[in-house]
Amino acid sequence: MNTCNSSGSDGNIYRFAEKLNLQERKIIDFSTPSNPLGVSKKIKAELRTHLKYLHKYPDNEVKRLRKRLAQYYGIDPETILCGNGSTELIYLISRVLRPEKVLMTAPTSPEYERAVLISQRLSASVGIRNETAVAKQSIKIDYITLKEKEGFEIKPAEFITVMTRDGNSAPGTFATESLLERHATSPRYDMAFLCNPNNLTGRLLGKGDVLKIADAAKELGCCLVVDEAFIDFCPDESVINDVVHNPCLIVLRSMSPFYALSGLRLGYGVFPGRLIENLKEYKEPWTVNSLAQRAAVTALKDSAYRRETFRSILDEKRFLEKNFRKLGMEFFPSMTNFYLLKMAGAQEICKKLYKEGILIMECSDSKGLGSSYLRITIRSHRENAVLIKELTKILQG
Amino acid sequence: MNTCNSSGSDGNIYRFAEKLNLQERKIIDFSTPSNPLGVSKKIKAELRTHLKYLHKYPDNEVKRLRKRLAQYYGIDPETILCGNGSTELIYLISRVLRPEKVLMTAPTSPEYERAVLISQRLSASVGIRNETAVAKQSIKIDYITLKEKEGFEIKPAEFITVMTRDGNSAPGTFATESLLERHATSPRYDMAFLCNPNNLTGRLLGKGDVLKIADAAKELGCCLVVDEAFIDFCPDESVINDVVHNPCLIVLRSMSPFYALSGLRLGYGVFPGRLIENLKEYKEPWTVNSLAQRAAVTALKDSAYRRETFRSILDEKRFLEKNFRKLGMEFFPSMTNFYLLKMAGAQEICKKLYKEGILIMECSDSKGLGSSYLRITIRSHRENAVLIKELTKILQG
Repeated sequence: MNTCNSSGSDGNIYRFAEKLNLQERKIIDFSTPSNPLGVSKKIKAELRTHLKYLHKYPDNEVKRLRKRLAQYYGIDPETILCGNGSTELIYLISRVLRPEKVLMTAPTSPEYERAVLISQRLSASVGIRNETAVAKQSIKIDYITLKEKEGFEIKPAEFITVMTRDGNSAPGTFATESLLERHATSPRYDMAFLCNPNNLTGRLLGKGDVLKIADAAKELGCCLVVDEAFIDFCPDESVINDVVHNPCLIVLRSMSPFYALSGLRLGYGVFPGRLIENLKEYKEPWTVNSLAQRAAVTALKDSAYRRETFRSILDEKRFLEKNFRKLGMEFFPSMTNFYLLKMAGAQEICKKLYKEGILIMECSDSKGLGSSYLRITIRSHRENAVLIKELTKILQG
Repeated sequence: MNTCNSSGSDGNIYRFAEKLNLQERKIIDFSTPSNPLGVSKKIKAELRTHLKYLHKYPDNEVKRLRKRLAQYYGIDPETILCGNGSTELIYLISRVLRPEKVLMTAPTSPEYERAVLISQRLSASVGIRNETAVAKQSIKIDYITLKEKEGFEIKPAEFITVMTRDGNSAPGTFATESLLERHATSPRYDMAFLCNPNNLTGRLLGKGDVLKIADAAKELGCCLVVDEAFIDFCPDESVINDVVHNPCLIVLRSMSPFYALSGLRLGYGVFPGRLIENLKEYKEPWTVNSLAQRAAVTALKDSAYRRETFRSILDEKRFLEKNFRKLGMEFFPSMTNFYLLKMAGAQEICKKLYKEGILIMECSDSKGLGSSYLRITIRSHRENAVLIKELTKILQG
């Protein structure tokens, strides 16, 4: 029995609570990347006042939030599309652009692979009748396996070499029209996903390096999706302002990890101009609920919460790293709010913590990792101290 | 300039507020079908206590809510799929089953048409490269035009006749496997949508009549999607318990209109066994936010709110109908929480109300209706009285 959560990043405390016969709020959840401060007071206050307006449909255009995001980043609101989590946008992009040759790293978020596979299965399936069956289309996904000995670093030169390696490259732009016009000179990869900081490892690729990859993608006419779900913890490294200069670059963001809003679902993406019009034609209506829109607007204004988060994360990282070292635990330096750990007997440790109502994520199902890896989120000092205490008991007891 | 909202059922108070330069909460919104009582106190209390848990991901399986729904209706929780509004499910069904011959009434909800058209465009589009372009698939949508002189009644015999009229019918079941096995003996229609009570008209088709259509659909192997978004106002007429007996029947429900939760997004569907497994393979993760799940569980327990709603709706219907008659206004009997009205100069009336900050829906863009139709939602007594007062001024002033 796999007693720990190993299903990607969903932090499935619900099934865990059922197995343990525990109330969900009694679980200390180190599996969901969140903010140690929890939901901000200002957001809670805003949501409380808005509960009486829930009978109204959400703004389908998410106009106020897009305007605030545009002001916050100094970008054009017309290039922003909001989603029911960035997850909606990952699936929308995959469905509408339906790439056939995809590049991603291993490890990374498992949603990219699922989204592109589903997009292909949808187009290859025969639908409700089979008399119009279309030829089954193939999809090729290549993985750049990140090396543990290099701290799971993504190397821009390697990424670019792989993108170009069959030499079948043609300069081009990524905007939909020109994609549709492209012919047999198409590049090796239609689409590449780059999660930065990378999910599961926490490793950051500096902005300059991401831009090198983005420039190469532009040259090759390959759509580069940079998923910055965790970049609010190192915001200066975002390439969100560079989408305007690169018709092959998409940047996805999430409000979940930094603002502790995973339960509300709020993500957004910044897209090249012509592509966004294409995506809108296929987007489902009213996907971003009213409270998520309100919460996000409030979050952007809350610079005190951001300052306090940086301070808290820094303190807790010091505390955790000091104790990881003391316990002889191997961890990978993280630029975000979680740590990847490598431990002998990781699964046993996971099970022991689980008996104490502590949920951490084990990575045995994650491509590029394996059963000796664990991921833990940085939580409040009290909770982190409980974790260290339990780990001490397990490792030294 | 079309100053009124005419974009289906979205009740777009946001753009309306911008045009009027009014705060959204100052608008009296008769365009969104809701509950005159507003969001229930119990739901607001439940959501307030849950705000501090927003850092947790929602339960991707929506297990607790599905269990409660199953208990409430006496059905199997494994046949229920929850969505980000029933809208998500309309699009999911269309995308996965990709029907080619579709039957629906006119008028009805505009989302069915958009969903099936998008599903076809996705499969016909060439994706990110064009070298693998597949032949453009055609889609045929037929509309049964409902007649005003018959009060926009859906006639089951006519519906069945149209479904079978080309005689190219083959008995069959709808579960996906058998669909995939079907050959040239496929029926005229793959899929039919039946909105009951029908959106825009409020007209109800009795349970017995819906089941007649469902039986015919089963015989024909046509997937019948019965959208019961508004049936909570006449719950005895639901066919939700009949899905288990009919592999061609899908029932969709929404918590928005009855429980005043449009802003939170919560819908669900009841599906034949094998089909639901197929849909789950394609469904995006975490689409139903935590607060929607909490609110829905609380709503199901709140029988006092349901009783009070029925009483309030009945009172307000009496009040509105009495005044419609007094003003010589033509309205169509409604079994739900809105009225379709037919009026000479409807658009002018709409514009005059609009100047008073009152938003109603005009139906000039709605197939099967036209510029002389308006839809108004039943609101609180105070607001309904304001509407009648303004209508009196316009019509008699």
